[in-house]
Amino acid sequence: MRFLTACRGEAPDVVPIWFMRQAGRSLPEYRKLREDHDILTLCRTPDLATEVTLQPVRRLGVDAAILFSDIVVPLVGLGIEVEIKPKVGPVIAEPIRSVGDLERLATFEPEADVPFVLETIRLLKGELDVPLIGFAGAPFTLASYLVEGGPSKDHRVAKSFMYAEPEAWQKLMDRLAEMTLVYLRAQIDAGVDAIQLFDSWAGHLSPVDYERYVLPASEAILRGLDGTVPRIHFGVGTAQLLELMAGAGTDVMGIDWRVPLDAARTRLGDDVVLQGNLDPVACLASWDVIEEKADDVLKRLGGTRHIFNLGHGVLPETDPDNLKRLVEYVHEWTP
Amino acid sequence: MRFLTACRGEAPDVVPIWFMRQAGRSLPEYRKLREDHDILTLCRTPDLATEVTLQPVRRLGVDAAILFSDIVVPLVGLGIEVEIKPKVGPVIAEPIRSVGDLERLATFEPEADVPFVLETIRLLKGELDVPLIGFAGAPFTLASYLVEGGPSKDHRVAKSFMYAEPEAWQKLMDRLAEMTLVYLRAQIDAGVDAIQLFDSWAGHLSPVDYERYVLPASEAILRGLDGTVPRIHFGVGTAQLLELMAGAGTDVMGIDWRVPLDAARTRLGDDVVLQGNLDPVACLASWDVIEEKADDVLKRLGGTRHIFNLGHGVLPETDPDNLKRLVEYVHEWTP
Repeated sequence: MRFLTACRGEAPDVVPIWFMRQAGRSLPEYRKLREDHDILTLCRTPDLATEVTLQPVRRLGVDAAILFSDIVVPLVGLGIEVEIKPKVGPVIAEPIRSVGDLERLATFEPEADVPFVLETIRLLKGELDVPLIGFAGAPFTLASYLVEGGPSKDHRVAKSFMYAEPEAWQKLMDRLAEMTLVYLRAQIDAGVDAIQLFDSWAGHLSPVDYERYVLPASEAILRGLDGTVPRIHFGVGTAQLLELMAGAGTDVMGIDWRVPLDAARTRLGDDVVLQGNLDPVACLASWDVIEEKADDVLKRLGGTRHIFNLGHGVLPETDPDNLKRLVEYVHEWTP
Repeated sequence: MRFLTACRGEAPDVVPIWFMRQAGRSLPEYRKLREDHDILTLCRTPDLATEVTLQPVRRLGVDAAILFSDIVVPLVGLGIEVEIKPKVGPVIAEPIRSVGDLERLATFEPEADVPFVLETIRLLKGELDVPLIGFAGAPFTLASYLVEGGPSKDHRVAKSFMYAEPEAWQKLMDRLAEMTLVYLRAQIDAGVDAIQLFDSWAGHLSPVDYERYVLPASEAILRGLDGTVPRIHFGVGTAQLLELMAGAGTDVMGIDWRVPLDAARTRLGDDVVLQGNLDPVACLASWDVIEEKADDVLKRLGGTRHIFNLGHGVLPETDPDNLKRLVEYVHEWTP
């Protein structure tokens, strides 16, 4: 269980490796399932979600599985209807745009609202011989979808709501933090061995805004899970927020490809384990490019307190053979 | 001429202010012109480009004008056909994807290829009583359009080309640097008082990749202009690149809203003037929010070696009255 050993800050036999979005469109066996089922059906059908979660473990030999799901899945428990549109992403027909809209939000009850997620975790625990990572979207990222009504380039509607109605925003963040904490606890009770909090869009905020409008909610979740399973906190384009995000209370800090891991280590100190951070675009290149860049990533921490990953999710065009070779390379690498 | 005084690192009477995209869709008089003309027609018609450049100077009282144009305008001189599609952006029918494609690139001759830009500058110099800023896109940002064929979320095609064909990439960057240097020199000869190099997409690169694949080309441009007019270097989401970008040879470093200016000052030292960095989304809020956030921006440098701007371009939904009030506020502000 080298992944969990590394999460605890101890020294595993070799550097552990897994990939964000390792289950997904880069794998032909996943694309085949998608011919017959849309994403949310895969997420909501335990047999299928289990199969999709297992696919990259079988094919790539990674050191951890990550539950196949989507960060918008629990929103249904708040009474929000979400559709995942091809080539667009999650679309919410009735976005949250006022204090009044907050009254529409229901109380999230995992066993009633997302029983399929918990059942998938239980099925996976009977099948897996590597640790299983559960996950949730962080409040800012969820709030952006809820307020924008879909993906956004600059989150201007969400941020405008945040600036214009700070009290309503605060309530929304509190509700999302409460829901996410309950959701992750339910995942832990069902058997996940670690959790990752994804704040995909937090990188659009300045440190001042992040600290004021977002950090307390993310902190409530991460601190609320202290003493349960290892916690991973991850954002994209968050070079300006690393100290704040690591300080929210996490065991592992996920770093995107923009910040070299030795620079992250200097900034964050030795107490946190670092996860990352090969540029996913590099994995579209030939093996010699991948090897050179993977080696650079590995050397920056010398194999210490490091979980290898990409700096963001696997791109659909990635050749899985390159990922498999990368897993072997990292496992064979010595400082 | 407080803007130029500040660019030189000297102390102007008050903090100067202008806005990226101050000429554009936030102004009703611009939207009216757009009813009859598309963007490239405005750029290519000196009378119209002059009028559009002057509009924000008249209405807002900013301390500098910026030439109304688009970073893709000079590409026509390379023999590249560009269309600006509404709600999409610049689209290039035949992208550059191989060494062979590079042979298609013609030699850029400003007086022959973009005479309208130079004529616009000459017209403006007869009209303006504030300095005029010229500009160009930086090689990486131009290369991304050329290789992707249009705007991209993650520049995966451009970066893949960069990784897969480093020599062809190098040639492309050299050609773009050469073109851009010629283009900016022609703007300076025609009369602009300062130039800004926009590297809108460089923030998608790690420092290692930026230094290896991009910096030499941007540096060739900026150093090639040393001793002419003040140079401003700007990128978005470049928190991880500030030292490298400032070191490329610039008088003023433009900072997006993600990095507080006091943190940028600490990282970059006292030699460079800083430009920025109010979040453009904040300008969609009510005046009290704008004032609070503008005050925070101003306090971080105490009015010293600072040119006030937004951290990126003015959003189309912005109320120009708020921008006008912001100009007055900055001009009245004292440490």
